[in-house]
Amino acid sequence: MVTQPVPWEIRAAAKRADTLSKIPQAWRLAPADLAKAKNQRDLTGPFVQQFLDADEISIISKESVDIVNGIRSGQRSAVSVTTAFCKTAPIAHQINNCLHEIFFDKALDRARELDAFYAETGRTLGPLHGLPVSLKDQFHVEGVDTTMGYVGWIGSNLGIKHPSQAHQVESQITTELLSLGAVLFCKTSLPQTLLFGETKNNIIGQTLNPHNQNLSCGGSSGGEGALQALRGSTLGVGTDIGGSVRIPAAFNGLFALKPTPERLSYRGVANTNPGQNTYRSAVGFLSTSLGSLELALQSVLSTRPWERDPAVVPIPFRQEVINEYRSRADKDGVVILSEKPLKLGVLWTDGALRPHPPILRGIRDVVNALRQAGHKVVDWNPPLHATAKKIHLAFLLADGAHDVHSHLSRSGEPLIPDLQESFKLRPPIPLLEYQSLTVEGLEYELAYSDYWNSTAVDGHVVDAVIMPVAPHAAVVPGKYYHTAYTEVINLLNYSAVAIPVTKADKAVDLVDDSYQPLNDIDKLNWDAYDSDVYHGAPVGLQLVARKFEEEKVLAIAGIVTSALETYHRK
Amino acid sequence: MVTQPVPWEIRAAAKRADTLSKIPQAWRLAPADLAKAKNQRDLTGPFVQQFLDADEISIISKESVDIVNGIRSGQRSAVSVTTAFCKTAPIAHQINNCLHEIFFDKALDRARELDAFYAETGRTLGPLHGLPVSLKDQFHVEGVDTTMGYVGWIGSNLGIKHPSQAHQVESQITTELLSLGAVLFCKTSLPQTLLFGETKNNIIGQTLNPHNQNLSCGGSSGGEGALQALRGSTLGVGTDIGGSVRIPAAFNGLFALKPTPERLSYRGVANTNPGQNTYRSAVGFLSTSLGSLELALQSVLSTRPWERDPAVVPIPFRQEVINEYRSRADKDGVVILSEKPLKLGVLWTDGALRPHPPILRGIRDVVNALRQAGHKVVDWNPPLHATAKKIHLAFLLADGAHDVHSHLSRSGEPLIPDLQESFKLRPPIPLLEYQSLTVEGLEYELAYSDYWNSTAVDGHVVDAVIMPVAPHAAVVPGKYYHTAYTEVINLLNYSAVAIPVTKADKAVDLVDDSYQPLNDIDKLNWDAYDSDVYHGAPVGLQLVARKFEEEKVLAIAGIVTSALETYHRK
Repeated sequence: MVTQPVPWEIRAAAKRADTLSKIPQAWRLAPADLAKAKNQRDLTGPFVQQFLDADEISIISKESVDIVNGIRSGQRSAVSVTTAFCKTAPIAHQINNCLHEIFFDKALDRARELDAFYAETGRTLGPLHGLPVSLKDQFHVEGVDTTMGYVGWIGSNLGIKHPSQAHQVESQITTELLSLGAVLFCKTSLPQTLLFGETKNNIIGQTLNPHNQNLSCGGSSGGEGALQALRGSTLGVGTDIGGSVRIPAAFNGLFALKPTPERLSYRGVANTNPGQNTYRSAVGFLSTSLGSLELALQSVLSTRPWERDPAVVPIPFRQEVINEYRSRADKDGVVILSEKPLKLGVLWTDGALRPHPPILRGIRDVVNALRQAGHKVVDWNPPLHATAKKIHLAFLLADGAHDVHSHLSRSGEPLIPDLQESFKLRPPIPLLEYQSLTVEGLEYELAYSDYWNSTAVDGHVVDAVIMPVAPHAAVVPGKYYHTAYTEVINLLNYSAVAIPVTKADKAVDLVDDSYQPLNDIDKLNWDAYDSDVYHGAPVGLQLVARKFEEEKVLAIAGIVTSALETYHRK
Repeated sequence: MVTQPVPWEIRAAAKRADTLSKIPQAWRLAPADLAKAKNQRDLTGPFVQQFLDADEISIISKESVDIVNGIRSGQRSAVSVTTAFCKTAPIAHQINNCLHEIFFDKALDRARELDAFYAETGRTLGPLHGLPVSLKDQFHVEGVDTTMGYVGWIGSNLGIKHPSQAHQVESQITTELLSLGAVLFCKTSLPQTLLFGETKNNIIGQTLNPHNQNLSCGGSSGGEGALQALRGSTLGVGTDIGGSVRIPAAFNGLFALKPTPERLSYRGVANTNPGQNTYRSAVGFLSTSLGSLELALQSVLSTRPWERDPAVVPIPFRQEVINEYRSRADKDGVVILSEKPLKLGVLWTDGALRPHPPILRGIRDVVNALRQAGHKVVDWNPPLHATAKKIHLAFLLADGAHDVHSHLSRSGEPLIPDLQESFKLRPPIPLLEYQSLTVEGLEYELAYSDYWNSTAVDGHVVDAVIMPVAPHAAVVPGKYYHTAYTEVINLLNYSAVAIPVTKADKAVDLVDDSYQPLNDIDKLNWDAYDSDVYHGAPVGLQLVARKFEEEKVLAIAGIVTSALETYHRK
């Protein structure tokens, strides 16, 4: 008897239902509330808080660093904290469709064990003891699916070699987080292929932006961005090969760290086309606070990941670098020694696509804030970003989408409409072209590095560069025309931190019809700006430093953020 | 009027003559001496010294560290030292054909400048002040050719983009060495393609082994090996993508450091097919002493090469690692604290090709010496080296030799006979195969790392592994059948140090006809052993540590060398 394969639509629907069924009855929203959410533009803050009690709100409003400190000092239990986030996350999911996997039982068991350990020994298991951490659905957790948005991987883990491994595998960073005391509780949504700046797939459909439901949450770590915007998590793990932690951070008013790829372990993480190892995806963190990014980096590096993953470079966390930069500004971000200001470059536009008014205002605010605090800001005119973008994109598409289609074919699901053109199955490019692009990429990297060094003419090389993350605030679905602002940084393998700066404001970010677009795409993007639609969308920027300068760029982000707060306060 | 292109043979002959013409008359050998050299099996020591005076012999017999100390303390001038090496090197070349480029005038000018600087300031320019350093003919020096053995590049520099750059370029490491006070004086021979374990090309012909003219000097940094065996240099810069600094070191009784590729700058260095960047060649050092390798690494890293070359990882020289390992053994290599011996793995054979009797005896001596000194030695049974060899070789040949042929076609010269089969022009492999090999390589790396970690069962992970460099001492030309012993370490990107151990001795390293070869190649290699032919050939081994463990493996090499000396003394 031949069994008919189950149609992919049925499998996807069953998976969605299964995820919802894992939400305890008490945390399910009433149909009226769901309907209210549908008509609500901004789901953050008061809207999501109406479903929580005061104690829960107090917990989820805390930042990761305060949460672990609270548990360490005995003020809070891991169970109470975990419960608050395990309640908030599914509310976020019900109103904003941002989760792929839910494992609250596992999380609460873990929290109980941690509390018992603490009660018994009087100490914490590690620096993340009791902290709920969410994961993009590329990271394997024992007993849990990793579909990475592919219907064909439902019930298993993408990337495993043999069916017997299903649900047995754990990514190295998952193990590291657990060894540090973290509580893992859910996995978040992402787009089909991972190579898309929004979050859509055939399993869950689409994740929108909690700050403004006209807009996308970004991608590919979009579910992380959306979940954290609703405070369903304060720290999450994502990946970034073209902007995938920075974009959702910027679009959701969050912070993100994109390290140089070899700083954190990607071992045992599901991925798109791992055979394209020339331009590697990086594991990074998204968080509601900058301090948590530092906590996460420091904690994970304390486990010496390079001893288990030979792709990781053995550079321990460098507190001395953080201290050196921190010593250069006071708590308001103001220069302490006038001869040692920060010197930051600023990229207003990449010359291909001019950012929308809210982004330009965001840059202006940061520049003014820094200058007011006594720092130097200079214009940044690097080698043409368009060159880097061309090379980077060629690598992502080099295999002619063979890897993507191998996953689609497991279930018969189609490409989502947004990707049908770019990921059409094509012949791979010839090897000599691939190798010649490799040389072009290396040459671009050298030229960029030389340009960076050329800023030392006044005796002070640029410390970091302020750049847009995207030419718009959180994007209108279907109108993300240009990912070069982030992709170029991936080609360079630089370290970067995304920071929230402001929100689009229809009263000040007026449509500017006088601008003469440089090209068709620039026009498309410029025309896509509508101050009403965008109103309230978070505006984020990235601070970019060179390879392996994660500590430095984190410390600089702290100074920039302080200076900006001071500036906005005045 | 159409000009006929000059036949490649004529251009090569002119280049050879030109090089010889740069040797001052006083340093040219008489025809009788050249004839004597032709009939001399061992050109090292007394033979080469007959052409030098006592003071010159005293200078060239010193090690790099003593040379720089001597100059720093005012005992010697840079000019006297440079003169001694500028005399010895061309003698080495006349009797052993090991140089591609000679620039003694430049070197002596430089030495005079250094002496003047010292006289004026009372200090040295840097830690290599006055030290003559030789370079493999891949490194660009201003005003000098880089042919890399291709006739078509005579009069220019391989790798330059435009003819106007000819003789203008300088490799980054060249600049670094000069900034440290080094005196550059010659560039050494290498094989066509670089991908060959001997040293032959259509410009200079062949470089043989100074210790035993029956044998090859190895390759690809073969000219360095030969020059240093004759003490025409005490420190040289080479490159290693498949064994190219370790092989000539082992074959010529020298030390070599092959770092992980991203530790030292390859920027602006001529290379074979730079578009194949998956398995990268590493810049390394060859020297007559271990101490110079440490001096060279420490000095070059003190210039912070990563600030100018983004491919270099920002890991400064870690003296603390050296100190930690050094504290574990006394000057005889004997364990100081019985609970902290070294634990070394030993690879007797890779299971594909059994090393010849002199190599097996070399390993035995090292193992016995280490055990006698109180260290632990355990057998090493890693994932099959044949797998790594297959993957690595596939990458080197992936482009179907298109890059090599692009260089050959500049002059019409043919491939040298040894390479005609392997570098025949072929279609490149398909991209999907290339990407799938990439995954195989990454998986092998993980498996090897896991195996390494598995040695921690007794609470002590293996510190380093003793391995053959090749399955033979310096090889009979044409009989280098198996380069896997070195290539596997390149696939893993591990750090390694080659050390001299002993010399082949027909009295003890008897032919063993009882061995049953495992396969045809093993038989070819086994049959190639002739104790008379090999008598006197240096036997070297490599000590292998993991990625970026250069300091550790240098320190361990010091302990191993001391223990071996103690063992041989007894």
